[in-house]
Amino acid sequence: MAVYTQVGAEQAAAFLERFDAGRLLTMKGIAEGVENSNYLIETTQSRFILTLYEQRVDPEDLPYFHALLAHLHAHGSPVPRFIEDRNGQWLHDLAGKKACLIEFLSGISVSKPTPTCAENVGRALGRMHASLADFRIERPNPLGQPAWRPLFEKCDPDETARAFPGLSETIARECDFLDANWPIDLPRSAIHADLFPDNVLTVDDQVTGLIDFYFACTDFRIYDLAVTHSAWAYDADGVQYHEETGTALLRGYAEVLTPTEAEKAALPILARGAALRFLLTRLYDWINTPPTALVTRKDPLAFASKLQHYTTNPVFTW
Amino acid sequence: MAVYTQVGAEQAAAFLERFDAGRLLTMKGIAEGVENSNYLIETTQSRFILTLYEQRVDPEDLPYFHALLAHLHAHGSPVPRFIEDRNGQWLHDLAGKKACLIEFLSGISVSKPTPTCAENVGRALGRMHASLADFRIERPNPLGQPAWRPLFEKCDPDETARAFPGLSETIARECDFLDANWPIDLPRSAIHADLFPDNVLTVDDQVTGLIDFYFACTDFRIYDLAVTHSAWAYDADGVQYHEETGTALLRGYAEVLTPTEAEKAALPILARGAALRFLLTRLYDWINTPPTALVTRKDPLAFASKLQHYTTNPVFTW
Repeated sequence: MAVYTQVGAEQAAAFLERFDAGRLLTMKGIAEGVENSNYLIETTQSRFILTLYEQRVDPEDLPYFHALLAHLHAHGSPVPRFIEDRNGQWLHDLAGKKACLIEFLSGISVSKPTPTCAENVGRALGRMHASLADFRIERPNPLGQPAWRPLFEKCDPDETARAFPGLSETIARECDFLDANWPIDLPRSAIHADLFPDNVLTVDDQVTGLIDFYFACTDFRIYDLAVTHSAWAYDADGVQYHEETGTALLRGYAEVLTPTEAEKAALPILARGAALRFLLTRLYDWINTPPTALVTRKDPLAFASKLQHYTTNPVFTW
Repeated sequence: MAVYTQVGAEQAAAFLERFDAGRLLTMKGIAEGVENSNYLIETTQSRFILTLYEQRVDPEDLPYFHALLAHLHAHGSPVPRFIEDRNGQWLHDLAGKKACLIEFLSGISVSKPTPTCAENVGRALGRMHASLADFRIERPNPLGQPAWRPLFEKCDPDETARAFPGLSETIARECDFLDANWPIDLPRSAIHADLFPDNVLTVDDQVTGLIDFYFACTDFRIYDLAVTHSAWAYDADGVQYHEETGTALLRGYAEVLTPTEAEKAALPILARGAALRFLLTRLYDWINTPPTALVTRKDPLAFASKLQHYTTNPVFTW
């Protein structure tokens, strides 16, 4: 959510000369995405995002993300493409970092999703999963269910108890529950795994972009829907559940890709898992990020509240 | 250099409805300018900067900046205009802050100015000063020469000595020198007072925008040229002086607005003052900003080096 690596305009202009992408007109560092540095670039030809990969993205994973987005784009999903230079290269070195020039997509990220918007997002996610049936490259989910207890154990218990009294007990109980109840056999696919409103661009509630695939991995595809539900159907503080929005999301998805009975049956468990996953990463970041750091800490309790809601309301209307 | 106040897309879309400026298509928080929050906004009609004023800009000063930019725009300087809404209002309340919708200007900010670019910047500054001869509104310079010693006295001596051994002695000596030698009677005008490369937009070395007027005030106009010289004619660390660039800047300025003999004679003193002003504000920020804060601290020593250079080389070629 900040610019970590400064790229001078002359440096960017020289970089653009590798491409058939026009000459540099404008360059603005933008506050967007996971912890990468991003510049919005305008050339005489078009607009682009220049991304420099910081520590949270392993350059080894970039070929996976590239292949995934190329596949999705070829199948009509509104995802940004990596731009190739004149030699067909899409991965570059710039200012000491791995860097890519990426297609710019118009659209805004809503803060308070309407049911119509959520239904369209459900459709876009369903279409994406449908088109990934023949995408064969695998990437294990580094933040999948087996990773949650170890992540919890990395959160200092004293710090956790001090910052969030009682939260450790909730998390330990939920880890036990999910260890015992996590499904073993559901349809798997490449998934986005982080499809929050921040990562969806819309114009008039129509989806114009699915972005920021840097958590994409192979996992239960219905878990992707569970993550999306947890991200779209609540107020920012996680307290108020918007049933109409949540239902619209599921309906949109099911219109495009009919879930199996097993997937439908598993959704309440997967939704609890999704809530726990973001509760844990936010808790870990909270405990380990100084309050004055460049990154805004997100409140873990929003997802504790969602977890509570999923636990007491394990019924989903499709 | 960050987004301090979050504005949701729906909030921005509703804000735009006050204007005849098109409907919202894209909105990106950008890392730019003094400590305001800035969004680059694209509508169905055009592009704009949405600025929310944070603590460094006093809302009481905004009418001055508005009048100044309107004057400059009317006289052909490439400055961004404040956009008026359907009721002729340009100053708004948004997300608890004063906010303005501002014209977007294309162009990049160079990191390593060429002499050609510096010459064009000199011309743009000269034209700006020339057109301000009949601009009558005054704003005292809160960071003018009388403010320097008090600012120095606000920098904790122990912290200063620890961080920059020997620097206090240099500053105290320079305050004494400038108290004794600062000119009293030179042509005054509204000045930009912060025309660093960051605040100039160019395309192919042609000036397409002069921006970020939030330090603008009434002071010696040749002091504005001194500030610009100190900002354009050195490497980022202030060690290497680029004589050709510095001379080109002065030449460009003098082509458009002939400096008086008194102004020429005073420039070496004013350049020392310019170097001291940025040395002091950087020192103050360094001492008073935690290293982990959202704002990047700028090294005061770059301007100590420039001050040293101006002191030992008090000759300027025009």
